[in-house]
Amino acid sequence: MIYFDNSATTFVSEGVRAKIVELTEDSLSANPGALHKLGTKAFSLYDSIRKETADILGAKTEEIFFTSCATESANTAIKGYMSRNKRAGNAVISTRTEHKATLECLDYLADLGYEIRYVKVGPDGKPDTDSLKEELGKGGVALACFTLVNNETGSVLPFESIAKTIKSVSPSTAIYLDCVQALGKMPVNLSALGVDMCSFSGHKIHSIKGNGVLYVRKGVRIDPLILGGGQQDGMRSGTQSPVLAGAFLEALKEVSTGIEESAEKIGEINSYLRKELSARGAMILSPDDALPYVLNVSFEGFESETMLHCLEIYDIYVSTVSACSAKQKKVSYVLLEMGVDRKIAANAVRLSFSRENTMDEAKEFIKCVDMIYDQFLVK
Amino acid sequence: MIYFDNSATTFVSEGVRAKIVELTEDSLSANPGALHKLGTKAFSLYDSIRKETADILGAKTEEIFFTSCATESANTAIKGYMSRNKRAGNAVISTRTEHKATLECLDYLADLGYEIRYVKVGPDGKPDTDSLKEELGKGGVALACFTLVNNETGSVLPFESIAKTIKSVSPSTAIYLDCVQALGKMPVNLSALGVDMCSFSGHKIHSIKGNGVLYVRKGVRIDPLILGGGQQDGMRSGTQSPVLAGAFLEALKEVSTGIEESAEKIGEINSYLRKELSARGAMILSPDDALPYVLNVSFEGFESETMLHCLEIYDIYVSTVSACSAKQKKVSYVLLEMGVDRKIAANAVRLSFSRENTMDEAKEFIKCVDMIYDQFLVK
Repeated sequence: MIYFDNSATTFVSEGVRAKIVELTEDSLSANPGALHKLGTKAFSLYDSIRKETADILGAKTEEIFFTSCATESANTAIKGYMSRNKRAGNAVISTRTEHKATLECLDYLADLGYEIRYVKVGPDGKPDTDSLKEELGKGGVALACFTLVNNETGSVLPFESIAKTIKSVSPSTAIYLDCVQALGKMPVNLSALGVDMCSFSGHKIHSIKGNGVLYVRKGVRIDPLILGGGQQDGMRSGTQSPVLAGAFLEALKEVSTGIEESAEKIGEINSYLRKELSARGAMILSPDDALPYVLNVSFEGFESETMLHCLEIYDIYVSTVSACSAKQKKVSYVLLEMGVDRKIAANAVRLSFSRENTMDEAKEFIKCVDMIYDQFLVK
Repeated sequence: MIYFDNSATTFVSEGVRAKIVELTEDSLSANPGALHKLGTKAFSLYDSIRKETADILGAKTEEIFFTSCATESANTAIKGYMSRNKRAGNAVISTRTEHKATLECLDYLADLGYEIRYVKVGPDGKPDTDSLKEELGKGGVALACFTLVNNETGSVLPFESIAKTIKSVSPSTAIYLDCVQALGKMPVNLSALGVDMCSFSGHKIHSIKGNGVLYVRKGVRIDPLILGGGQQDGMRSGTQSPVLAGAFLEALKEVSTGIEESAEKIGEINSYLRKELSARGAMILSPDDALPYVLNVSFEGFESETMLHCLEIYDIYVSTVSACSAKQKKVSYVLLEMGVDRKIAANAVRLSFSRENTMDEAKEFIKCVDMIYDQFLVK
């Protein structure tokens, strides 16, 4: 099996599996809110997981909140910030290339009467600086929502320059950053980034599905999405889960080791595939400077889903668009927004890698593409 | 170790642990939204888990939604119903003995301008029928929120008569029911109950923390809490987790077997403890007809937390109030609302059992109480 669909989800690592089993033992399983020593032990465990997670992400312990997924994190950050900071302004800026978790929250805010201003993106998937300045210049921008690494193209946000522009034109605008696809694939240091809120997902870094993280910079106030017993400093009620938090941390530790070596290896695989696929007439849609873990390619003569199923014959797994949108069977809104021709976008396939992938798999992939061309391409 | 704190949380069953490991294998771990056959396999797995869960709960497959916890389920149901059904009325009825997940949602609604009317409860913890009729009679009640089994006292809601009263006075009022403490301890058949929305928690039935269920009766419309990729029919976005859904189902299957035999065993333990503790001057605060799995007892001469720590010396674990409120170190608002004298409530301890507990443990518990009385009671 060749699994090139790691931006959709990753396989669970052996370490995460073992950690989950370890953390389910009775003596660690009391309610972290209980006053007895078993509860205290569970709380200490949870708190140490939170602290270690914060350390790796370059955050303060009290800035890290465990959620059920990045989608929950996005909902909490975006809706919660706007709900809590009504005086900060009535507008939000973002792009139309964000993940559905962000776009749907923005639609929700629009329904509530907020003004959502979409900044144009260039052919490289990056927000256009003039458009950004223009939208900011209209004033009243409470929040800016961007993505550090686009899930369909690997396009990397030039965060430093974007943040600088925002702070110079509209200093009070808070920044929410979707870091889901960046985590473990490039260094992410939250205090160095200088961002206000971030979301992370466990299942994109070899944890199981159902655990995520929300970062909220100290001093930033947001309304919680989930109310109840006031766990996690009231930011996210619901009994804390040391098992899921611990699974996230274990995955985070694993992907945070050797980021550069892995990026180099995947970079070689990516370059090889770009070269070989281009030589066969396929069109590379990921920008040249994209993160190497994502490679978006358009195969002329094959609709996205056709190529996906052709590859499947050879036990190779790729995506058409984001898994969250795949079943709607639409052409990628991300590619269209980048100005890719609709016919080309309709033939786009996303290959997405994890550190586990190898050059041998890439070579096998090219062999299979050749066989598919031979067998199925109508010339 | 004697663990009598099962209403706070339960230990993870061997079957659940094994199921989690089984469901983390690569071939089951694709994104259920992916179009390739690994994705289809993951989706089928997820869907079959959903169907089997629905079957056991007496629901239709499409009425079951997996959430991260009962608190999320409560937030989705209560806030989502009121947000979606604005024409149904401006009032919500409930009691002051609900779990914090409900009470905090009601406070949130009150802040939005909704009228929250609290029905009085009797000394048995049950909503007072006259008070219920009175509050319903004022009109405009869109939603009624109750709990099937109270987490601090085991008091069982006479659901049939409550529902009858609601339907006779205010037929359009929808009913949300917190079923967290009832699940696995008494038969719960959702279609037979005739309820509109229900919440369930995995970690109260020997699953890990971080998985719950929301039931929404077919035809009932609510706004989702978490927006994004539109998973779970748009009711709950975020990549579906077959691992967590499967853990919930495994736990559900286990606790749904032999409910009556377990209830009989726990009933005997409960009767024994009531008799022995009463004989020692302790006051039983759980109503006579409470579910036997919860026994609230007031020990004169011992503040709640003192008794908790005395028992801890003997490796016995109990609660003061709900774990969600324990750290605030307040006297139980549930007991106070039931009319229990504040001094008596301040000495209350909750013993809560699971099917794993034994009569031997109960006997050992009584021995330890005797030793605690001997050693610590100021006469």
